[in-house]
Amino acid sequence: MGIFKDIESNVRGYCRSFPVVFKEARNARLLDDNGGEYIDFLGGAGTLNYGHNNPRFKQALLDYIDSDGMTHGLDMHTEAKRDFLETFQQVILKPRGMNYKVQFTGPTGTNAVEAALKLARKNSGRQTIVSFTNGFHGVTQGAAAVTANGYYKDAIGMPLPGVQFMPYDGYLGDFNTLAYFEKALQDSSSGLGHPAAVIVECIQGEGGLNVASADWMRGLQALCRRYDMLLIVDDIQAGCGRSGTFFSFEEFDIQPDIVTLSKSLSGYGLPMAVVLLKPELDTWKPGEHNGTFRGNNHAFVTSREALLTYWSDDRFSHSVQQKAQLLKHRLLQIQARHAGACHHKGRGIMQGLEFANGKVASAITRACFERGLVIETSGSDDQVVKVLAPLTIEEETLEAGIAILAAAVEQVLNERMAKAS
Amino acid sequence: MGIFKDIESNVRGYCRSFPVVFKEARNARLLDDNGGEYIDFLGGAGTLNYGHNNPRFKQALLDYIDSDGMTHGLDMHTEAKRDFLETFQQVILKPRGMNYKVQFTGPTGTNAVEAALKLARKNSGRQTIVSFTNGFHGVTQGAAAVTANGYYKDAIGMPLPGVQFMPYDGYLGDFNTLAYFEKALQDSSSGLGHPAAVIVECIQGEGGLNVASADWMRGLQALCRRYDMLLIVDDIQAGCGRSGTFFSFEEFDIQPDIVTLSKSLSGYGLPMAVVLLKPELDTWKPGEHNGTFRGNNHAFVTSREALLTYWSDDRFSHSVQQKAQLLKHRLLQIQARHAGACHHKGRGIMQGLEFANGKVASAITRACFERGLVIETSGSDDQVVKVLAPLTIEEETLEAGIAILAAAVEQVLNERMAKAS
Amino acid sequence: MGIFKDIESNVRGYCRSFPVVFKEARNARLLDDNGGEYIDFLGGAGTLNYGHNNPRFKQALLDYIDSDGMTHGLDMHTEAKRDFLETFQQVILKPRGMNYKVQFTGPTGTNAVEAALKLARKNSGRQTIVSFTNGFHGVTQGAAAVTANGYYKDAIGMPLPGVQFMPYDGYLGDFNTLAYFEKALQDSSSGLGHPAAVIVECIQGEGGLNVASADWMRGLQALCRRYDMLLIVDDIQAGCGRSGTFFSFEEFDIQPDIVTLSKSLSGYGLPMAVVLLKPELDTWKPGEHNGTFRGNNHAFVTSREALLTYWSDDRFSHSVQQKAQLLKHRLLQIQARHAGACHHKGRGIMQGLEFANGKVASAITRACFERGLVIETSGSDDQVVKVLAPLTIEEETLEAGIAILAAAVEQVLNERMAKAS
Amino acid sequence: MGIFKDIESNVRGYCRSFPVVFKEARNARLLDDNGGEYIDFLGGAGTLNYGHNNPRFKQALLDYIDSDGMTHGLDMHTEAKRDFLETFQQVILKPRGMNYKVQFTGPTGTNAVEAALKLARKNSGRQTIVSFTNGFHGVTQGAAAVTANGYYKDAIGMPLPGVQFMPYDGYLGDFNTLAYFEKALQDSSSGLGHPAAVIVECIQGEGGLNVASADWMRGLQALCRRYDMLLIVDDIQAGCGRSGTFFSFEEFDIQPDIVTLSKSLSGYGLPMAVVLLKPELDTWKPGEHNGTFRGNNHAFVTSREALLTYWSDDRFSHSVQQKAQLLKHRLLQIQARHAGACHHKGRGIMQGLEFANGKVASAITRACFERGLVIETSGSDDQVVKVLAPLTIEEETLEAGIAILAAAVEQVLNERMAKAS
Repeated sequence: MGIFKDIESNVRGYCRSFPVVFKEARNARLLDDNGGEYIDFLGGAGTLNYGHNNPRFKQALLDYIDSDGMTHGLDMHTEAKRDFLETFQQVILKPRGMNYKVQFTGPTGTNAVEAALKLARKNSGRQTIVSFTNGFHGVTQGAAAVTANGYYKDAIGMPLPGVQFMPYDGYLGDFNTLAYFEKALQDSSSGLGHPAAVIVECIQGEGGLNVASADWMRGLQALCRRYDMLLIVDDIQAGCGRSGTFFSFEEFDIQPDIVTLSKSLSGYGLPMAVVLLKPELDTWKPGEHNGTFRGNNHAFVTSREALLTYWSDDRFSHSVQQKAQLLKHRLLQIQARHAGACHHKGRGIMQGLEFANGKVASAITRACFERGLVIETSGSDDQVVKVLAPLTIEEETLEAGIAILAAAVEQVLNERMAKAS
Repeated sequence: MGIFKDIESNVRGYCRSFPVVFKEARNARLLDDNGGEYIDFLGGAGTLNYGHNNPRFKQALLDYIDSDGMTHGLDMHTEAKRDFLETFQQVILKPRGMNYKVQFTGPTGTNAVEAALKLARKNSGRQTIVSFTNGFHGVTQGAAAVTANGYYKDAIGMPLPGVQFMPYDGYLGDFNTLAYFEKALQDSSSGLGHPAAVIVECIQGEGGLNVASADWMRGLQALCRRYDMLLIVDDIQAGCGRSGTFFSFEEFDIQPDIVTLSKSLSGYGLPMAVVLLKPELDTWKPGEHNGTFRGNNHAFVTSREALLTYWSDDRFSHSVQQKAQLLKHRLLQIQARHAGACHHKGRGIMQGLEFANGKVASAITRACFERGLVIETSGSDDQVVKVLAPLTIEEETLEAGIAILAAAVEQVLNERMAKAS
Repeated sequence: MGIFKDIESNVRGYCRSFPVVFKEARNARLLDDNGGEYIDFLGGAGTLNYGHNNPRFKQALLDYIDSDGMTHGLDMHTEAKRDFLETFQQVILKPRGMNYKVQFTGPTGTNAVEAALKLARKNSGRQTIVSFTNGFHGVTQGAAAVTANGYYKDAIGMPLPGVQFMPYDGYLGDFNTLAYFEKALQDSSSGLGHPAAVIVECIQGEGGLNVASADWMRGLQALCRRYDMLLIVDDIQAGCGRSGTFFSFEEFDIQPDIVTLSKSLSGYGLPMAVVLLKPELDTWKPGEHNGTFRGNNHAFVTSREALLTYWSDDRFSHSVQQKAQLLKHRLLQIQARHAGACHHKGRGIMQGLEFANGKVASAITRACFERGLVIETSGSDDQVVKVLAPLTIEEETLEAGIAILAAAVEQVLNERMAKAS
Repeated sequence: MGIFKDIESNVRGYCRSFPVVFKEARNARLLDDNGGEYIDFLGGAGTLNYGHNNPRFKQALLDYIDSDGMTHGLDMHTEAKRDFLETFQQVILKPRGMNYKVQFTGPTGTNAVEAALKLARKNSGRQTIVSFTNGFHGVTQGAAAVTANGYYKDAIGMPLPGVQFMPYDGYLGDFNTLAYFEKALQDSSSGLGHPAAVIVECIQGEGGLNVASADWMRGLQALCRRYDMLLIVDDIQAGCGRSGTFFSFEEFDIQPDIVTLSKSLSGYGLPMAVVLLKPELDTWKPGEHNGTFRGNNHAFVTSREALLTYWSDDRFSHSVQQKAQLLKHRLLQIQARHAGACHHKGRGIMQGLEFANGKVASAITRACFERGLVIETSGSDDQVVKVLAPLTIEEETLEAGIAILAAAVEQVLNERMAKAS
């Protein structure tokens, strides 16, 4: 592993938590180059909803490559893009009664967010975007501006104008945070002004698995309509099925003006991102938001395969919801066993346990890794251990992983109690 | 093609110039879904230096996928990344006496530029970046700020602080633009202040094939050293061999502090980007610049194969230089035939012809496409027809493409002359 | 009055409410050029705490001018400045145990605020200033950034980075707004980051006579100390005795790091402003904040006279407090008579009545003017009728003015009730 | 003088150069409190064009104060304001065929500049202002943004977006700086974009007495017309007669869209500032740019007296031009005597000598002060000794002052030559 220390930048992060060299992967199983095997509860930070190297997508990709299908297409028409668009319309948009245009952005989540913010500012002619406490949307300059975490904001090295933060659902205990937001909108002397748009995650992944309630999300949409602000749902981490439905907001019965998708969109871990936008917002001029890799056709091929395989009916969705139930049950058991030391957070297969602080949580994820489980923390202090297992994980693997987690929690909390006494 | 009009955003651009659906591609040949065949002088806007679906990289990629090698790795250690790093060090850095750390950024050029700017601001503690007239560096907020083109800047919908533009080499005719830059640095009342860094392209691709001279580039590096500014070379479009050497600045004998690479880096058109940075600048904290697709292992596999195949010795470099000579010769012939109506620009296989305005140039690229040549314009008014053929293009295909271009120029200029008289 | 319409800019404001030409003034009495006489409850928007053309200051000023004393002194030493400084130290700072340096800024409140913000950013090396809902601090770019009112912010025509707004005391009903502020400071992912300073008014004059409680102000200072932020009290409108003590924060037992003073500082309505700063913050370099009229010596002369006349002992302070009591009593009587239609706000001789909206309040001030009382509104909807009478107003004039106000309220509320029925 | 060291902020500047306490002043003569007498070539940095305590204005002011004329009027109509406006229109605007609205801003130059910038942004709907190398316009945030000097910019502690600097006339030797400006305007990829306005001084006072030629100023106005940018002339220091005409641009036959005036506008050194704006730009809403001291009626009284006394015919203007000739003649004699060591700069009674650097220039102004002459430096390195004597200075006093300057130059240059050998 010397080469990594020698010439890879200090910016590398996850590899510090999992200091092995990974070689192969299938669904929720990882192999390192020494034959070590691991269960994967990290899931590419939400990118591997269908597991590693899903065999159906793999075959489609092999066939495409073998036939010399267009690999790189800028934003030109290709068969792979056409097929993806038709399938996305047929399988995702139509059945949900969603009428959106699709913008292919540079193939990263942060790029989709940048495009969404531009679009909101362009359409409104205004500049302020409201984002929420603990929101995470990316690390390029525009996306970092709407990201709440100071670690990423400070890295920009510049003030980030055009953004105001409001408290997320539950941030102020029982106090209705939307009431505060509305008061600030009503009052021309609140300092808020008239925002162009609101950007929000239904489940805050990096922010510590904070969950917005259906009431709050509906209230937020109503606020956006009342005060002429666009509603952007960033569904990069919580979307593509992780919440139990394709979009994380489906059960809320809302219609965001703009939706960003990336991470698990390609299905195979390949870079891809899109912005969904209401047709009336499609004021883009040709090439106004461009990028070399908007046409990553390999991703279009696997993405289409994912849609056809998992979303043509609701069986997959149901199975995810069942696993989410199981996961919740198990996490609540751990919580019950260590009453006061941790509590359950999240929904879908995007749940976890919050501990006293980042030290405890990190000790637990380290103990997990020693036992063969790859799992990470999130939250402003990294205090939440987060389960982002592939949605396709076999139930026994899920149970095995949870068992490791339970054991690691036990060990770490006991050690700490022993030390304290 | 209805689906594109129906649900793809108006932001789509290239597909308007080439209104067919592409299906297959090999080296410099494209096939559409009606069996139409085209020569490719667009080259993925500089992404396909080794042609479409290069057979050697293809085989390596098929093998890797077939073996279930890690596809998505965040920034974890993988075999594919290790092998890439070792090869990059062995084949590229060491022989050139270059001592750099490698940062894997989000897999787009604009993301690498954002990381480079952050790094410059972080290391200097200052905020102003100097960029140049006609420079293009991407469309996310930080990168758009250093991009000169108003079309992309305006799309941000926000003022973009922290950037000052200086005239590029040749921008003011014979006037030495570095002398102006130096005067502004010397004079504490010039309004420039003390910049953190300078970002520059040795050949401005989007900006219209403007070429910086060796003297100017060396002078710029000297200025950076004298006035304590970091030198960032954005080699995203001109790098990976397009200039005739791997880096576009090799013949200048300079050592930029930071270099950005993307586009042809993966060799196969797959999304990938890196920042090269002097080790003493590697002040990144873990994960401070993150991103879901930093570990696009498919790209690492093909990128390594490209390095091994084309850069282990200097044969490829020589062949590129020969083709560049041929291309220059042919373009000068066209210029001679239409004296005053066009003039030659660029170097390496990044050359073109500048016409009176964008209307003429676009008429020519349209006429080319009718004859089976995919080619695009660049420059602030799209007035430059730009040849970005794969570096691996067969000589006869190159000649065939140039012949089409020559005929198209002939036709369009004659038509316009006829109309004018 | 044609000349005003002909060539004075539309930006003129107060003159639209009081469309006469004023000629002479003494204490709380105004005369127009037609012999009309008015009681002044506007008090130069807080500038005329000692009344118009206070005879003691007038004589001192006449003597100074007559002797050809330095009028304009830039920031050079003059006798008048020396005498002012000595008196300010002796009469104001020393008796209150306050250890501050005095900075003479450009002679406007907004200029003092700009200097205070620079100083806070310079000393902290950070950029964010926290300001409060309904705060008003001026209309130059830096001051407008910390001003909450969108009317003034929008006029800048630029985003105003480096500022975050927090809810003022009472803004969220019973919810403790400092608890929210502290949570945002504790949480590195709140989006707030680490502010350089907080700027606050103890009584929000333009913002609608909102009053911060002693507990809240002490809590705010404690927060500043705990989280390493500077506390700036903007005492431009509420200072110089208007609250009943020289500084509006005296009774809170706090020690702001920086205090801004202007408006009534000169005593005679002459332009003057200072920043008081803790000595350890005096990191200014010579001339770093400059300005042509920092040395308005006429103002120094009258300011010194004001300090000697009114602040050498506590008689004046007591008389102001008595009048404030009387004013409160009378306003509460009006409130009682029109229960539900208005309610009392403010403290010191900076009190008023809040009505349903700006229309009602403006109708009342118009009715007052017809009856010979000059009085204005404040608040984000101009919904608060504000009494800013000179502190030196004779008790019978105060009563006469209040009587007019009471009658105007009666008339307007009755008319509206009549209309509604 | 202990009180100044004890409690005045370190920001004090001029007083360090002239460490005495000034007491009285008449025209170009200053007296300190020890009976020391000085000739004043500083002239309140351009504020005392009519000398200290001009007896005619003094009497008008004494009368006004004595009669209890309105001192402080916010922006209400007063007799003094009416009389000022009528006189300004009659004496200044009409005879010059100038059709402008008058905006009373806060009574400082920087405040007028802030208002002008707002107005330009408001009317154009755009944000970028072009300013010039060595331009100085004030130290509040908006004005500092258009100020070129890094000393003042850095003090803001924030990036200052919305401004681009262009080289002033002569900045690049013989190279036509307007040609560069025009190229950047023509080229949509220059990085400049479409500016809202240009702000310029005809003579750069703080910037080192750089003078724009008539051709350059006319060219600049033409550029503004051609590219739809507003032309703002900042005439704060060079206006009110200092150039030999009331406005510094009169002889250029241009019509700026916006003009800022302050400094000598009141004539007596009292704070006052106005913005002159073309009527069609008067899109201000009432009170949109406000300020407590916009109605400094004492200044209106003296300002009107100045207009009546000195500008009712062209005798004063001629006398200033004659003195300017004399001054130029004398300075060229000094230059001739010390060929190569200094050279003449400026025009009107705003001329000076540029030396090798700020050290030499400061040594000379110190030597002047020892000989009884108050004079200061300007320029980015303080390398220019600047003569800003009152325009009303008696010829013999002017000669006496120049003689002191000549002697000081002689002494300092000889000492340095002696040291060097």
